[in-house]
Parts: sequence; C-alpha cells; structure tokens
Amino acid sequence: MTRRTSFNPVLLIAKKRDGGRLERDEIRALVQGLLSGEVADYQMSAWLMAALLRGLDDEETLALTDAMLESGDVLALSSVRKPKVDKHSTGGVGDKISLCLAPLVAACGVAVPMISGRGLGHTGGTLDKLEAIAGYSVRLDAARFERVVREIGVSMIGQTERLAPADRRIYALRDVTATVESIPLIVASILSKKLAEGIDALVLDVKVGKGAFMKDLTSARALARALVHVGTRAGKRVVALLTDMSAPLGRTIGNALEMREALEVLHGAGPSDVRELTLVLGAEMLVLGGAARTQRAARKRLESALASGAALDVMARMVKAHGGDVKMVLDPERLPSAPRKLAVPAPKSGFVTAIDPFELGLVAIELGAGRTRADQAIHAAVGIELLAQRGEHVGKGAPLAYLHVRQLPGRALVERTRRAFTIGGRKRPPPLVLERITR
Amino acid sequence: MTRRTSFNPVLLIAKKRDGGRLERDEIRALVQGLLSGEVADYQMSAWLMAALLRGLDDEETLALTDAMLESGDVLALSSVRKPKVDKHSTGGVGDKISLCLAPLVAACGVAVPMISGRGLGHTGGTLDKLEAIAGYSVRLDAARFERVVREIGVSMIGQTERLAPADRRIYALRDVTATVESIPLIVASILSKKLAEGIDALVLDVKVGKGAFMKDLTSARALARALVHVGTRAGKRVVALLTDMSAPLGRTIGNALEMREALEVLHGAGPSDVRELTLVLGAEMLVLGGAARTQRAARKRLESALASGAALDVMARMVKAHGGDVKMVLDPERLPSAPRKLAVPAPKSGFVTAIDPFELGLVAIELGAGRTRADQAIHAAVGIELLAQRGEHVGKGAPLAYLHVRQLPGRALVERTRRAFTIGGRKRPPPLVLERITR
Repeated sequence: MTRRTSFNPVLLIAKKRDGGRLERDEIRALVQGLLSGEVADYQMSAWLMAALLRGLDDEETLALTDAMLESGDVLALSSVRKPKVDKHSTGGVGDKISLCLAPLVAACGVAVPMISGRGLGHTGGTLDKLEAIAGYSVRLDAARFERVVREIGVSMIGQTERLAPADRRIYALRDVTATVESIPLIVASILSKKLAEGIDALVLDVKVGKGAFMKDLTSARALARALVHVGTRAGKRVVALLTDMSAPLGRTIGNALEMREALEVLHGAGPSDVRELTLVLGAEMLVLGGAARTQRAARKRLESALASGAALDVMARMVKAHGGDVKMVLDPERLPSAPRKLAVPAPKSGFVTAIDPFELGLVAIELGAGRTRADQAIHAAVGIELLAQRGEHVGKGAPLAYLHVRQLPGRALVERTRRAFTIGGRKRPPPLVLERITR
Repeated sequence: MTRRTSFNPVLLIAKKRDGGRLERDEIRALVQGLLSGEVADYQMSAWLMAALLRGLDDEETLALTDAMLESGDVLALSSVRKPKVDKHSTGGVGDKISLCLAPLVAACGVAVPMISGRGLGHTGGTLDKLEAIAGYSVRLDAARFERVVREIGVSMIGQTERLAPADRRIYALRDVTATVESIPLIVASILSKKLAEGIDALVLDVKVGKGAFMKDLTSARALARALVHVGTRAGKRVVALLTDMSAPLGRTIGNALEMREALEVLHGAGPSDVRELTLVLGAEMLVLGGAARTQRAARKRLESALASGAALDVMARMVKAHGGDVKMVLDPERLPSAPRKLAVPAPKSGFVTAIDPFELGLVAIELGAGRTRADQAIHAAVGIELLAQRGEHVGKGAPLAYLHVRQLPGRALVERTRRAFTIGGRKRPPPLVLERITR
C-alpha cells in the first residue's frame, strides 16, 4: 500500500487544464481517489478531457499505466519457467490472429498468458471467437490460468474483476464522455492490462486504415511509438508492427467463421494473409522471448510447428483445459454454422481493388455477430465469408461474399455488402506490414 | 415546452472536443438532459472542460444562457410599470455598492429588481451584508418580490430554487471540476440569472485587479465585451464598466462594516470612492432606464436624491418590507459591532502606495467574515476597517487598519494585515473607472 496523501482533485484538474505536467504521486492520487470515492466520476471525466486536449507526456503516461496496474492484482506466473510473451492488437475487422498465433508460439517454447476482451463496435473480440467452440470457458481463476500456461504453454482468458480495476472504471467513463480518442490514455489502458499478465515482453499489432481505430499512418505511428516507449520504460521488451487494415484480414468476419479460419492455419492451410501475419508476429514473439536468435530462424521454427501439427496439438490441449469441445478443433466443420448462406453477386466483372472493412464490420454487427452496446447478445455462427480478396478477379454475377445468416436479411444489407467491394483494374494491394517500431 | 429530440450526449461532447460549433438545439438538449438525467454529471463536466479549452462563440454562449434561463421561471414583473434595470458586479473586496446604489436608483424612478448571491472565497456577498440588518429576509416569494418592487421601486433578494436551476447545477459542477475560469461559461451563468429577473437593461461592473476574478485588463475587457455582446443579443440594453480592484473599495471589509459604509453614502457621506462609483453606475442605470437623457442629468438627479434623503427613505422602506430593523438604517451605529477592535500600526511613516485586496479578503475570511466552503457560518460584525487608503499619508505607529474581532487574533493575522499595506512615496492611485464598454 502507498501512503495516503491529502490532495485536492480540483487542483490536479486545473493543472492539466492549464497544460501542466502531473507528478507521479498526483496521478496515483487521482486513480486511487477514483476507486476510493475521493475523486468523483465528474472530476475524473473533466481531467480526462483536459488530458485528451492538453496531452500527457511519456512520464505521465507511465505513471497512469502503473497506477492502473497497481489498482489490482498483478500475476507473477512465477511457476512458469519459460519466457512469457504476449501479443496485443489494436483491433481490426476479421482479425483472428491471436487464435492461431498464441498456440503456435507456445508450441515453439514461449509461454503466452493471453488476457483478451470482447468485441465492441465494428471490430470483433477474441473472447467471442473462443466461445464459438462449445464449452470453452474464458473464465479461469488466477491459479488455474497459471497452471494451464505452465503445463500447455498458453491460456486465453478474459479480463477478471481483479486485474486493473481502475482501467475498467476509467474506460467505462471514457466511453461515455468522448475521451476514448487520446493516444496516452489508450497506451495506459492497453499497457496496464497487459503488464498485469506478468509478461516479459510484448508484441503490438497496431492496425492502420479504415477498419482500424487509427485511420492513418501518422496517428498509428504515434500510438505505436508511445506504446513502445512507455512499455520499455515499464521494463518490458516491446516491438510494434504497423499493419494494414484498409481491408478485412482473411476471408471471414464473424465468430465461428473466424475460428474456423484460424484453425485452418493451424491445420497448415488458411488464407495467405492470415498465415503470413501469424508468422511475422510469431517470429517477433520468439525473438523477444529468446526462443530464436533471428527472425529467419524463428520463422523456420514456426513453419515446422505448423507443418508437424505441434501447434494444432497445443490448441487442442488448451481448448480441453478450458472445457471446450476438442472435436471442433480437430474438425472445424463441426463449429456452429448458420442455417442460411446468401450469395452477394458481383455487379460486373473485374479485379477487386478495395473492400471497405468498416462497412463490413457494421454489416456483421447487423447480422448479429457483434455488439453496439456491451449488454447485447451475439450469435456465433453468423457473419460474412469473403470469396474475393483484393487483387483477385471476379466474373459478373459470381459471388463476392456469402452472408451467413439466421434468417434472410433485408435488401439493404445485401446492397451494403455489395457496395463495400470496389471492382476495377488490376492493382497491387498494400503490403501487410507497413512499419516496424522498436525502441 | 420544447419538443423532445432523441440525442447522444457523447456526440455533442466529441463535437466540442474537436473544436466544432454546437447548434442552439444541441446546447438546449445538453442542459435539459442534465436536469432530466439523460446527461450524466460526468458527461456535462467533460463537455464543460472541452468548452473551456475550445471556447464557445457568442451564438453558443447565448444559446447556453437561454437554455439555463428557460430551465426555470422567468419573472415577468408585468405589474411594475417603471423601466427595470439591474446592476451586476463580478465581485471584489469591499464592494458594497449594490447596497446604496439600488435604493438610490429606485428613488430616481427606475425599478431595481435585484437578485444577489452570497460571498464565497475572498469576496463578500450582498446577501450576507443585507443580513447584517436584524430581521432582514432575503427570501421573498415571486409575488411578494414583485409587490415590493412595484410599491417601493426596489427589492433585494437571494436566488430562489426556481430561477435558472440549470445554472445552479452547472455552477456546482464547475466549482469542483476546475471549469470556472471560462469567459463564455461565466457570461452564460451571470446573464441567465440576471435575465430571469425580467429586466429591461443591465449595467455590469467588471472588476479588474488583484482583488477581482479578472486580474488584468485584457481578460476583464474580454469578459465585459462578451457580456455586452451576448446580453445585447438577448434583447437587453447593456453597458459594462471596467473598474479598479487593485485595492479594496472604500474603507471597510466585512458584512456589518460594509452595510454601515453603504448607509453612510445614503446619509450623504461615505468614502469618496464608494460614493463616486455609486454615482457613476447609477447614472448608467438611469440613462439605460430612460429616466435621464444624459449622464450629467442623471448624476444631478442622483446627487439630489442623496441630499434630500429620498434614497435613504427608499432604503428604509425596502428594509421594512423585508422585515428588517429600520432603526439600523436610520442610525447605522446600531448595526452589530464586534466586541474588540485591534489596531494594526504602520511600521514607518509615508504614503500608502498599495493595499493588497486579495490578502485582506483572506484575512477577513479568517476573522469569520466570509466562507471558503458554502456551508460555513459567518459573523456579521467582524472585519477590517481601513484607516488609510491609497494616496493617504500615515505616521509611524499610527493605525493602518482596525481588525474588528470576536477574540484577539494570532500575531500572524495582524502581520498579514500590516504587510498588505505598502508604504512609500507619494503616488497617484489609478482611476476608479478604467474603461466603458458598450455595444
């Protein structure tokens, strides 16, 4: 416990309002005060708005991260002898990478204690995708989580009440006070949760483009740099990749559909972009974790874990440890499927030059795959299957996509899906990895 | 009643956060939403911080003023046939002008329906000073207030629950979220309360200097201009004077002491600065109210109302209508007095070149004349009597001031009072009125 200091939250709000720099103790007092009731929600939200508009420097961001981290339990995972490395994605449409990446990396000797979130807004959430496997429980207590990580090398769970509770309080407040869009606040929120996992190193996948939170390279780069700087200051090895999110990742959007695609990668197949990004991020994790000396060596090791079935085996064992149906892992066709599939035909022939990920994310929500409010129920089987990716040719009337639906959707949704595809001349899609940011 | 429109407060916060301009309906929705519960306190405080840092233009400020005004009753005072003019001061140390100004102006044919506040912080409040008169009630209902204004020409009361309730809610929130210091928010708060009085015109006394809210001419001018612009847009005749608050006004600080001084003015005496500012502001009020065509004619009329005792007679009748002890008005020596008077001697001889009004305001609070929290009790009789004003000569050891106290204060308070006076060479004090701002 830290010593109690008497303080006046109004002075701390005024200091940030006037562009001042808060001391570490002052930021801790604000965060602890929010939890103790000494700082009211309306005071924190005024401070958050001042922080958004005036900024926080790296020291302040680190202090906020630490204060939120210290507000709850920090897992030690001391019985896990292997290096512990996690990956965090800032979120995109069709981003199912964690599902194949985590068991793959674990199969190569690096432990992955992964705590994920649910989908909200146009992007999906790893927990929802995991729950497409019948019986899979995302709620393990800390002891069982540690045992699964120790014995299998990977466990994927949801955030518990006891990890970074201040982040949950503050995030809920930011969500309803238009204070989400602040790089320092985003950095502190991400890092406080990830550092609570007791990891040694972290790989960040910062998505850029229309389907991502950061729409342009400049803002994504600023976020990535802040994450790397502050994470490094917090004593972790951190690498960030800026990756393309100007179109959906892979060929599926929707929980069971995305799980199926991730399992395909573990079975040695899957779309080339999903497989490639998994290997790139995995190589970073192996090198940061000390399980490989070079990216090249790491990649070889990952490829052989896919080819040998070792990664799939780890996935099956993890799913079993979480109470999930292993048969679905071994035979992805057993995953929940929607009763109807509706083709969305191409209006003309040509090459697909663009696919709007934001619009397709919204269509997927309408189909029931996601939420616009945290209390909404979702349906595992519904979603969108993309038959054409960028750079691929389609004939007129050939399906661009299938909508996997529970009942026939209105014409408007079909039309929106069709319009999300741009058909034109042959054009090379952008590279998958745009930049790599290290210390 | 206005039509209900469905709206999302988060979008309105984000719009102001990003520097956008809110529509009239949007501002009304925020204010009504705060009262109805659709907008949470933490959302309003985030919006207020965004408004403070991004600004509100005159249209937005007017919309906010109107929304707060419309949140409660607006007095029509339709039975009052005379022109209705009020004065508002932004607050200073020793500012007792309202107490003599309001009855004086009423004696000259202009009705003054004055709704005032209590002191908070280093400045006193008109209500506290009125209550130095035994029995004076600052709580009249709207019907009785109107009757007193109609029959006597002036009534001075406190804000009721029903006038501009949104302003009270918002002000309470600003006070604890460091969002007080915003010119548009100050303008909307002042004007919404004053317009609720049903006045035709308003004279503003914007104080400038160390004892005032606005410490420098630039910010005071900006506030005065905004008040005049927005008040004029609201359909009122408005004039603002920037007046000096680099030293206390008059020779007293403290509730009964200030009431005594104001009554001295009505008795035809009083310190020259208090009398002069009363005449200057009164002349503006008579001209705005149409009771005089020129400042010169107005001033003559005011001077004769003082000389004839007509102004004192109006004061006596108003105090009687409010249940107050008229004998105190006719003989100010009957006002409450403190049991002890302690002289603060001059450390050397010379001319008083400066008197720190802020420091003396704080000393007066320590003596019990004011509050630092709204729930604190105050003592009518205590305060500071200044024996020397700026430009006056003092001999070494002669009293600079008397502290009127209930019990002997500590040495520190005496020392602080002494140090608030600067003694040096002969120097001309600044003029009382620094600028006059009209449309």
